[in-house]
Amino acid sequence: MDRIWSTELVQHVGERVRLAGWLHRLRKLSSVCFLVLRDSKGLAQIVIDDPDSIIQLEQFYHESVLIVEGLVVAEPQAPGGIEIHHPVFELLAQPSEPPPIDLFRPRLKAHLPTILDHASLTLRHPYHRALFRLASASMAGFRAALGALGFVEIQTPKIISSASESGANVFALDYFGRTAYLAQSPQLYKQIMVGVFERVFEVGPVFRAEPHATTRHLNEYVSLDLEMGFIRDHHEVMAVLTQVLTTMINTIQTEAADVLAVLNVALPQVPEKIPCVFFSDAQDMLSKATGEDVRGEPDLAPAHEIWLGQWALREYGSDFLFVEGYPMSKRPFYTHPNPSRPTYSNSFDLLFRGLELVTGGQRLHLYDDYLAVLAAKRMESEPLAGYLEAFKYGMPPHGGCAIGLERWVAQLVGAQNVRETTLFPRDLHRLTP
Amino acid sequence: MDRIWSTELVQHVGERVRLAGWLHRLRKLSSVCFLVLRDSKGLAQIVIDDPDSIIQLEQFYHESVLIVEGLVVAEPQAPGGIEIHHPVFELLAQPSEPPPIDLFRPRLKAHLPTILDHASLTLRHPYHRALFRLASASMAGFRAALGALGFVEIQTPKIISSASESGANVFALDYFGRTAYLAQSPQLYKQIMVGVFERVFEVGPVFRAEPHATTRHLNEYVSLDLEMGFIRDHHEVMAVLTQVLTTMINTIQTEAADVLAVLNVALPQVPEKIPCVFFSDAQDMLSKATGEDVRGEPDLAPAHEIWLGQWALREYGSDFLFVEGYPMSKRPFYTHPNPSRPTYSNSFDLLFRGLELVTGGQRLHLYDDYLAVLAAKRMESEPLAGYLEAFKYGMPPHGGCAIGLERWVAQLVGAQNVRETTLFPRDLHRLTP
Repeated sequence: MDRIWSTELVQHVGERVRLAGWLHRLRKLSSVCFLVLRDSKGLAQIVIDDPDSIIQLEQFYHESVLIVEGLVVAEPQAPGGIEIHHPVFELLAQPSEPPPIDLFRPRLKAHLPTILDHASLTLRHPYHRALFRLASASMAGFRAALGALGFVEIQTPKIISSASESGANVFALDYFGRTAYLAQSPQLYKQIMVGVFERVFEVGPVFRAEPHATTRHLNEYVSLDLEMGFIRDHHEVMAVLTQVLTTMINTIQTEAADVLAVLNVALPQVPEKIPCVFFSDAQDMLSKATGEDVRGEPDLAPAHEIWLGQWALREYGSDFLFVEGYPMSKRPFYTHPNPSRPTYSNSFDLLFRGLELVTGGQRLHLYDDYLAVLAAKRMESEPLAGYLEAFKYGMPPHGGCAIGLERWVAQLVGAQNVRETTLFPRDLHRLTP
Repeated sequence: MDRIWSTELVQHVGERVRLAGWLHRLRKLSSVCFLVLRDSKGLAQIVIDDPDSIIQLEQFYHESVLIVEGLVVAEPQAPGGIEIHHPVFELLAQPSEPPPIDLFRPRLKAHLPTILDHASLTLRHPYHRALFRLASASMAGFRAALGALGFVEIQTPKIISSASESGANVFALDYFGRTAYLAQSPQLYKQIMVGVFERVFEVGPVFRAEPHATTRHLNEYVSLDLEMGFIRDHHEVMAVLTQVLTTMINTIQTEAADVLAVLNVALPQVPEKIPCVFFSDAQDMLSKATGEDVRGEPDLAPAHEIWLGQWALREYGSDFLFVEGYPMSKRPFYTHPNPSRPTYSNSFDLLFRGLELVTGGQRLHLYDDYLAVLAAKRMESEPLAGYLEAFKYGMPPHGGCAIGLERWVAQLVGAQNVRETTLFPRDLHRLTP
């Protein structure tokens, strides 16, 4: 008999079927036992009233791996309206001890560090694994949106020769006796690839050696990157990003509808045109509203982003807000200035519910501009020779952006700490599991 | 006027259109000039007979970035049957010098190291970029096949705390004063995730600090990994892999048909059932056929794989051959033995045209088996605590495999060196661009 998923039971009422999964919960009443079996897709309730079977089952720890054959019965009282009767069990693997954390409770009763320490077990919890179904559907949506727009998927190297992109907060490694670095982003490579395919995207790990521990930073995370050529300015990137977010949400709705209920999440609406505010106007508003004069600051503080998120929700009913035109002073060397106000940049951040989710913008595309900016910043051009060659031989105006996958999921579900939505987080203190 | 792609010209005969791209080639005849414009999708031939325009164009180097507006004319003599007449040019970017390598020739006239040194330029060549369209379509096919089979995509960490998977050939890095390592594969994490989703896959970089330079090894490459639970043995993994390869080839056919002509590639047929030979039988055949007694060797040499590939083609008309049942002695600690011949393993390699493309097999799933094998191999269990916890709390029989993306594309096109099909290869001597 072929095994079926718990979610397929409803199509098999009146038949004997074969299920497989983990012993999620066992509840004994006076003369009957209820066993909840968990498989990859959901849960199934199994009723045991045969005394010998009950004795057998009492030997099994939670998380025992079982094959169950039984009769599918419609039972309005049961979760999902279905029960399995007259089961026969086969034990595939018995845990060597009972799990130290109960997975059958609606939410895990443990602190986050404990949950993360025991990820091999706690990720099995229906709520926790549902978070990673959102991540999976989000990646699928990201790719689908960009594939439809003619973007080509690339995979660029993570071991790089020079720390020149930003120069700071880079992990160093021993590469056959030389020092190499881990890529902080695919930025330089995706720009090179605009010269090849015009429109490219990448989903992959990025590495930041930031020596501080906050609830929203990680030292390794998944970046959803895109880069596109022949743009007028950064507004075309913002338009593509709006489409991408819309498709990501639609893909969650179609591919992961089942987990939205588990997570108790309402998906945001992406406005057809996401509201947009200039950086300097945002600072004026903030100064007026809060009494704290933030004009002249080169960036927004987290508290300012939260205020702006609330403002966008109030004024536009939008969970999303673009802030454009950040000062050039704090942006990386490849940033394109605003031609009419050159101390400001053709860059943007996207705030999602008051948190920076995306950073993007237009990049310089002329070789001489790169030479000039590297000279002005006293950066060496030699380590960037392979990158600069793209511009030496003709590059169109281009731009792009990057979405942090774990942050996106965290904001979707309202997680307090991005570690909750990271499969095996890496931070200042955590390298395992 | 909106820009269109070169491949869309045929739908616009008789209209004025706007194209954008790179000056791929300029040929001057007596009173007329032919300009070939290259965009992301293909080439367009533009005819210039206005003397002023010809003088203007002669200032432009190859790889100049242009916008061209002109009239689409059907011209049976022209490549693709289409020409652009009466063009008007706008120069977006002029290279600062002429490219050192001609991109307009059918194949680049340069040695591989030079081609790789100038990747920012040479990847623009229609043949070279076509290789990475095959890679992109292959990744899409891999994901589509597995998505349809209920596999969930995961992204596992690349910075890991211990070098314990194989213990050798691992890159070490400085992680805030501690030593960490780069993951050689997602093996341990994808096994943990079988406990969560039963079926998982990952597309991502893997890192091998192998200090030798061959035409088929790289120090960083893209691995297409899958892992699945509730299997009887490795044959179920082989069946899924057969489906995956079939879908990868079908996806190339549908998504990248245009580049197959550029590459002059005939795609292989995946047999419904790929022929399979036992390792020990393969050794017997090799010994008989070559006169060299290889029985008792723990692995196949490259020359043996080539011989077996030719044998499979001759005997079964198949480009693919499974070799199963490698000796346990050379397989990693998590390998599941063959229950009836325990010195051999429930593992397999897939040879594609005589080259090892995939390695896979069934894994151990019982906690006590792991403790026993680690003790026998004198490996410490403490660094693997987070991994072992998955088995401590119940894991089903499971297995999986991994396909090397760059090798796959190299074998598809008959590339002599896997560096040709790697976007920015990393080897003993190469860290740039």
